[in-house]
Amino acid sequence: MKAADTGLDYKNGIVEMAHGGGGRAMTRLIETLFVARFSNPLLNEMNDQAFLPLADTDNLTGVKPHYVMATDSHVVSPLFFPGGNIGNLSVHGTINDVAMSGATPLYLAASFILEEGFPLADLKRIVESMAEAAIYDNIQIVTGDTKVVERGKGDGVFITTTGFGVVRDGIKRSPHNICVGDKILVSGTLGDHGVAIMSHREHLTFETEILSDTQSLSDLVAAMVAEVPTIRCMRDPTRGGLASVVNEITQQAKVGITLWEKKLPIQPQVKAACELLGLDPLYIANEGKLIAFCPSDSADQLLRCMTNHPKGANAAVIGEVTDDLRHGVQLETEFGGLRRVDWLSGEQLPRIC
Amino acid sequence: MKAADTGLDYKNGIVEMAHGGGGRAMTRLIETLFVARFSNPLLNEMNDQAFLPLADTDNLTGVKPHYVMATDSHVVSPLFFPGGNIGNLSVHGTINDVAMSGATPLYLAASFILEEGFPLADLKRIVESMAEAAIYDNIQIVTGDTKVVERGKGDGVFITTTGFGVVRDGIKRSPHNICVGDKILVSGTLGDHGVAIMSHREHLTFETEILSDTQSLSDLVAAMVAEVPTIRCMRDPTRGGLASVVNEITQQAKVGITLWEKKLPIQPQVKAACELLGLDPLYIANEGKLIAFCPSDSADQLLRCMTNHPKGANAAVIGEVTDDLRHGVQLETEFGGLRRVDWLSGEQLPRIC
Repeated sequence: MKAADTGLDYKNGIVEMAHGGGGRAMTRLIETLFVARFSNPLLNEMNDQAFLPLADTDNLTGVKPHYVMATDSHVVSPLFFPGGNIGNLSVHGTINDVAMSGATPLYLAASFILEEGFPLADLKRIVESMAEAAIYDNIQIVTGDTKVVERGKGDGVFITTTGFGVVRDGIKRSPHNICVGDKILVSGTLGDHGVAIMSHREHLTFETEILSDTQSLSDLVAAMVAEVPTIRCMRDPTRGGLASVVNEITQQAKVGITLWEKKLPIQPQVKAACELLGLDPLYIANEGKLIAFCPSDSADQLLRCMTNHPKGANAAVIGEVTDDLRHGVQLETEFGGLRRVDWLSGEQLPRIC
Repeated sequence: MKAADTGLDYKNGIVEMAHGGGGRAMTRLIETLFVARFSNPLLNEMNDQAFLPLADTDNLTGVKPHYVMATDSHVVSPLFFPGGNIGNLSVHGTINDVAMSGATPLYLAASFILEEGFPLADLKRIVESMAEAAIYDNIQIVTGDTKVVERGKGDGVFITTTGFGVVRDGIKRSPHNICVGDKILVSGTLGDHGVAIMSHREHLTFETEILSDTQSLSDLVAAMVAEVPTIRCMRDPTRGGLASVVNEITQQAKVGITLWEKKLPIQPQVKAACELLGLDPLYIANEGKLIAFCPSDSADQLLRCMTNHPKGANAAVIGEVTDDLRHGVQLETEFGGLRRVDWLSGEQLPRIC
């Protein structure tokens, strides 16, 4: 068999309908690209499903772990952007959704919808960045799927990832735990991802390039829950930004929230870009930041733990939970006034993740 | 608040970019349509991840269960076809991938990529058929995601489902267990799904309408593994049909396979349609059939078990495993000859699932 029969032509090759047909071309794509890059014993079995060896009850402590599952489809445009691409974004996004429960992410499923004609070289770059992201977090991509749609029926590549993880301390963190008086912390600067994408789309350049903050937060989360197990709940403020997440939480927890504008960490160039583009950084997507709710008397300890971690260097206490009967969110402005932070209405930044 | 503020206009409403924006419109779509129809305590928590209460080791038998995970993106075209639609197909497809390991499917994640302009009425029909399929199988849709892409960048709706299940008897069924002399059984007629889709696309009508066989196989699998725990391995011959699945298995198990043409159950109208369309039923997708490999001396018992089940009424022993050193698949024709059953080359039926 010639090399050309088994290899993929990354220089000139494109995705063809046959790559989704269930036959030899699809098997070749999967084996040569996906399985080769994501290689691990569970995936390499190449069944239609992956066997998962799960963590048992901790024999030392007798703690019974919880398990969590999260899924996200990624349709970001452009596929490659300053600071990342759809590949590592699709791994980070789902790892972070799993990690927000306090879980250690263990396994990932990855499913690709490819558009006919998409360059194999671009697909290779994307897959490689997924593999790197997975290795960084010690998470295994254990099963997957590949479909191909005709030209004009997709947009290059869409990636859906589903993550599975274990909450080793068995604690169930959710908005229902939140109490009036709790403090709200953010792990770093706001708006970087959305502004990076938007600047790239609008061909804006700044003195300091704005990069997406796409990154996994599972190591930061591990440090946080070890230090302050009483964290009530964590969320990553992705699509819709901080404003959307805190509005969701006020509804779920039936409380009010006050944010302190002067405490919100925002990079100067992000602030400048937002003014130029007419955007409000509160509504801009992040892909490597989290917010955490904790009892007031643990806030200092949690902040120290976060700022001591490289991914929480710019962490800050940004607000507190109130007994507002309307379950609203308000911002205490730098000038001491109060303004309502409403839900995002309409679509501010399409296809941000 | 007026009803119009909270409800969705299923009569004239369409998917708008705002439905993917992370704001109020998205939350309304998710709560009014998805959560309402898929309602269960785990989903209703409305976190970015679902907590999964998992089965423990069976205290009566001491058996340690295995866990499995499978994912599939569904891009079938048309979205509605005789016998089903992308909604129930997306539930059945992943349930079946989970079940083929001998597992009981427990939880499903569902992620939607919607095209701007897609009618909400169609989305509702799709979601309702997913909910019905999930209820039928007692599987809970516990987490999900919704993205919207611009007109012309998608094709109505793509659905990625990821399933999680438990193999209660702890047995790991895989092609590696297959031995020379094993028998191969199929649970029913071949080619129904692919021919139903193709006939619909080509506007062909037959005296007897050809319906997709889309259905969950988890109850059939449960009956089979209870009766014959020594089943070596099961697969659902979807995209690429029976021929592709047996070719994959010969590679994995390093054996040969002989299929007996006269034993292959194929409906007369499917056979006729295949002749008309120039298709080979061996390569046509099924969405509600499985093949099973079992030791030769269990084949009769397994066949009885299958034919006694409504979803295995037309089951048959269709071939056997050989020691062919080339790991090939051959068909013993009705006239006694032998022909090679090769991998599918190229794309025979695009977007079949």
